[in-house]
Amino acid sequence: MRTVEWDYERKTLRLIDQRLLPGEFKVATYDDYRQVAEAIWAMVVRGAPAIGAAAAFGLALAAQYSPARDLPALRTDLMDAAETLQEARPTAVNLSWALKRVLKVVQDPALQGSGPDSVERLREAVLTEAQRIADEDVAVNQQMARHGAALMGEGETVIHHCNTGALATVDWGTALGVIRMAHEQGKQPHVLVDETRPRLQGARLTAWELDQYGISYEIISDGAAGYFLQSGQTRRVFVGADRVAANGDVANKIGTYMLALAAYDNEVPFYPVVPTSTIDLSLAHGGLIPIEERDPGEVLSLQVEGERAAPSGARARNPAFDVTPHRLVTAIITEKGLVEPPFEANLSRLAGA
Amino acid sequence: MRTVEWDYERKTLRLIDQRLLPGEFKVATYDDYRQVAEAIWAMVVRGAPAIGAAAAFGLALAAQYSPARDLPALRTDLMDAAETLQEARPTAVNLSWALKRVLKVVQDPALQGSGPDSVERLREAVLTEAQRIADEDVAVNQQMARHGAALMGEGETVIHHCNTGALATVDWGTALGVIRMAHEQGKQPHVLVDETRPRLQGARLTAWELDQYGISYEIISDGAAGYFLQSGQTRRVFVGADRVAANGDVANKIGTYMLALAAYDNEVPFYPVVPTSTIDLSLAHGGLIPIEERDPGEVLSLQVEGERAAPSGARARNPAFDVTPHRLVTAIITEKGLVEPPFEANLSRLAGA
Repeated sequence: MRTVEWDYERKTLRLIDQRLLPGEFKVATYDDYRQVAEAIWAMVVRGAPAIGAAAAFGLALAAQYSPARDLPALRTDLMDAAETLQEARPTAVNLSWALKRVLKVVQDPALQGSGPDSVERLREAVLTEAQRIADEDVAVNQQMARHGAALMGEGETVIHHCNTGALATVDWGTALGVIRMAHEQGKQPHVLVDETRPRLQGARLTAWELDQYGISYEIISDGAAGYFLQSGQTRRVFVGADRVAANGDVANKIGTYMLALAAYDNEVPFYPVVPTSTIDLSLAHGGLIPIEERDPGEVLSLQVEGERAAPSGARARNPAFDVTPHRLVTAIITEKGLVEPPFEANLSRLAGA
Repeated sequence: MRTVEWDYERKTLRLIDQRLLPGEFKVATYDDYRQVAEAIWAMVVRGAPAIGAAAAFGLALAAQYSPARDLPALRTDLMDAAETLQEARPTAVNLSWALKRVLKVVQDPALQGSGPDSVERLREAVLTEAQRIADEDVAVNQQMARHGAALMGEGETVIHHCNTGALATVDWGTALGVIRMAHEQGKQPHVLVDETRPRLQGARLTAWELDQYGISYEIISDGAAGYFLQSGQTRRVFVGADRVAANGDVANKIGTYMLALAAYDNEVPFYPVVPTSTIDLSLAHGGLIPIEERDPGEVLSLQVEGERAAPSGARARNPAFDVTPHRLVTAIITEKGLVEPPFEANLSRLAGA
């Protein structure tokens, strides 16, 4: 199944519960958009493209189960639902991008009329747009994967941060999708998987996915990436992104900036793999991207042999993302091809294309 | 008590078992140098200065419990014991530095004679030298601490990697010793504690020590250091070291290199705090420092809510140290004062001083 999937029979949204992997594969079912907002916040579903699609389907749920009996009432309900969903997480722009796309349909003046029939038509239009976002995501991922895999030679060792695979998207993946495509092309990549503290998306989700695909990998501590870059064992670094600013600065999972520094210091190419829906031309630079700070418990809850590592009463800070300055980025891989420096000009040209 | 302490009554070596902290404070007792070698390898005791002192006392145990009845036999036993202790861990030069110091006493041609009396005198000489190493370590730490603390202003936030406190030394600490001194001087430092994967010496040991001293701190994921450096919240970075090469390259706990890159990129001063016993002028540069690779289980054994994070069957790599090129180092803080670039000339001058 897809990571984010509409159940047409039951009119519910199904999400793979990523908090339980790799120990347990469980699918959670939602019929209330408020639960979807909560699921996004709690990271049942995570990954910029996946939360975009989940939020879009969240609006489809809001439409489906709204008690509204006419168009204006339904439109109001959907605006409210979009606000709730928007607030679930601040950094990934795909969330607001997807909501805006669906709201454009909601506000389409061509959709007129009164009574149950018009309400039903708007419900359907919202679901159709959400489904389109999901389907496009899969297609876009595979386009990016082909552009990225074309860069890779035989038997390359690459470093990958966080999870950017099928679980981070509707299906297939962004950065991990590139590696997957190279694998399908017989290039036999080997992946050094950053475990990605604090939530361990690398050790938990990326390792699990690579096992499914039969791709060779080894998990490393995030701090060890520098060693493997320095020792000449790594050919490329692939990461996803939660938001790319107009100048090419990249917000991504915490730790990405230090990884990019180490890649740059060793002249190893560093590639964010991002659908154009992740590019936010409204922000001039990365310093303007809102950075979510999450519960310190995510840092402190770590256990070794059943014992919590940190002393009781310990305090922690937990910024979930950081910003990699564009000067450290070799090229941004999008579905429309590679974007190289100067990023400001080339990203703006891409948006026009 | 000290982290590494000789029990004169029972003629045993006592080590705080650092694998159990912060959950349990337990002191392990040794009367066999082979167990001490094992304890160093298993990281009952860790930290370059602490393992140096532990190895020296290991030789004192070997001398104490050797069945040798004359000097040549005892000298042979001690040479064998030194070899076993030397092999316990490869990266920290303090281990071989301490062993060499004790062996110099062992081989002192002035110590002559035959029979039990001469054997007893060598036993005493070995213990005296080990105790001198331990005592000097404490004094040297406090000298470094004063040099380092003099750099600090009021209320500075600093980043600290791994554990370099009393637990990493005989007592007091190197990098953490600097912070401790600043605290005692009323400068109210605030420490961002790198949790330091995979063995979490930061979250476990440094946080525990800071709690004891009443110093303000917050634990962060190693990958988050870049964020706090970038955001201008951090004034300095202090780390220890396991070996410093003649050109100033610094081998230290894995993750240090990426931290140094992030400090450098944000013009935040980066200071290794190292006793001169950690400086190895016999190695021209850091590429010649042997880097220990430890059991992948240290990376894979991590648990969250009682469940192992990585999939079963997952593989990992676990280099325990990395090398920070001297170009990223602001100054090396030693007991003889600050060593600034050019490091090659200034370290060699220091050795002569």
